[in-house]
Amino acid sequence: MILAKVVGTVVCSSKNDGMEGSRYLLVEKTDQHGVKKGDYLVALDILGAGYDELVMVTEGSPSRETPLTVNKPCDALVVGIVDQVDENERVIYRK
Amino acid sequence: MILAKVVGTVVCSSKNDGMEGSRYLLVEKTDQHGVKKGDYLVALDILGAGYDELVMVTEGSPSRETPLTVNKPCDALVVGIVDQVDENERVIYRK
Amino acid sequence: MILAKVVGTVVCSSKNDGMEGSRYLLVEKTDQHGVKKGDYLVALDILGAGYDELVMVTEGSPSRETPLTVNKPCDALVVGIVDQVDENERVIYRK
Amino acid sequence: MILAKVVGTVVCSSKNDGMEGSRYLLVEKTDQHGVKKGDYLVALDILGAGYDELVMVTEGSPSRETPLTVNKPCDALVVGIVDQVDENERVIYRK
Amino acid sequence: MILAKVVGTVVCSSKNDGMEGSRYLLVEKTDQHGVKKGDYLVALDILGAGYDELVMVTEGSPSRETPLTVNKPCDALVVGIVDQVDENERVIYRK
Repeated sequence: MILAKVVGTVVCSSKNDGMEGSRYLLVEKTDQHGVKKGDYLVALDILGAGYDELVMVTEGSPSRETPLTVNKPCDALVVGIVDQVDENERVIYRK
Repeated sequence: MILAKVVGTVVCSSKNDGMEGSRYLLVEKTDQHGVKKGDYLVALDILGAGYDELVMVTEGSPSRETPLTVNKPCDALVVGIVDQVDENERVIYRK
Repeated sequence: MILAKVVGTVVCSSKNDGMEGSRYLLVEKTDQHGVKKGDYLVALDILGAGYDELVMVTEGSPSRETPLTVNKPCDALVVGIVDQVDENERVIYRK
Repeated sequence: MILAKVVGTVVCSSKNDGMEGSRYLLVEKTDQHGVKKGDYLVALDILGAGYDELVMVTEGSPSRETPLTVNKPCDALVVGIVDQVDENERVIYRK
Repeated sequence: MILAKVVGTVVCSSKNDGMEGSRYLLVEKTDQHGVKKGDYLVALDILGAGYDELVMVTEGSPSRETPLTVNKPCDALVVGIVDQVDENERVIYRK
């Protein structure tokens, strides 16, 4: 999984994802400290992540492995809202 | 998912994709503003995306997760035509 | 999908791909004009693509989605022989 | 698979991975000598890998192929704790 | 598929790959001539590839598509031992 921050949203009226009300977030990849890297992707969100939150994103086929995304053409999913990151036994990020 | 603009088409008469009339688009990756990056791929389109439209593309296995692409050897699919992108609570792209 | 030109073949006598007579092509990635990029991969071919032909290659799991490749350990497949590529409403490649 | 060292943990209270008590590790990719490369990812751990251990990580869909991760939205899994690496017939890493 | 040379082995006593006696090889990616590139990965081997042999490696989900690797958390598999590579109608590698 990768870490990313929610920076915006992407709205498509014409789509074929088989989901009503799906919410696509524009997320910017970050390092483990939550520092943005300038590299963006669009991830489906079913957790209700908010603007500027640090999230954990699953890419590829495993994105389909939740009850709401099963058999959906989604290749990036927010699977967690990050509370804390530890590195070398120190807290380096806290929500 | 990634954002890309439709810049052309790719036509194959000899193919083994198991689909009649499949339409392959040449798309150029863009940033979230719709600015082209010079990086291209070929994506299957079943939405009818038009020339120069900003689209959302799913890559890999999840591309097969629509009624028309199930069990097809497709690794990139247009899943949405983008209407609007917001970043930092401002509209940065509108169709 | 990506575009590539057939530049050679790879022969393995000892293999565990579960296929008899499978034909592996050495292909070189190209841009949309068919200009080679110096980046190579090995793709399974069941279409009979010939030397120097421009082909469309599917990567990853979707390569298994043809009657001949189902349940085979193949991660790159020639899915089409390209006849024509259009960009910005002009023909930029013709077979 | 890739080699990586365990450098920390990522904690998410709000998540939709369908697992209770799942443990996410921050791992840093290494070369075959165990030397860190400055490139990080988050991997699910069900083996109990400890801080600074060299581990083998599977990426993508195959991460779901253990009894505990089947049908889970996980794209990176610790599949082994490395005891020894040999290169050119010499031991280059030992736990 | 990619080409790589067998340069060593990786041994894990604690693992959760669901296989007894699985053999993980350290392989170094090569170009089509068999020239090493300095880029390494760990691949499962069920063919018995030997030290310094040129092999063809399948990555991602398709690695699971052999009788021995089905439903295993393996993302790279040796699927062939290369006998010969031709490029531009000349033999450029022979075992």
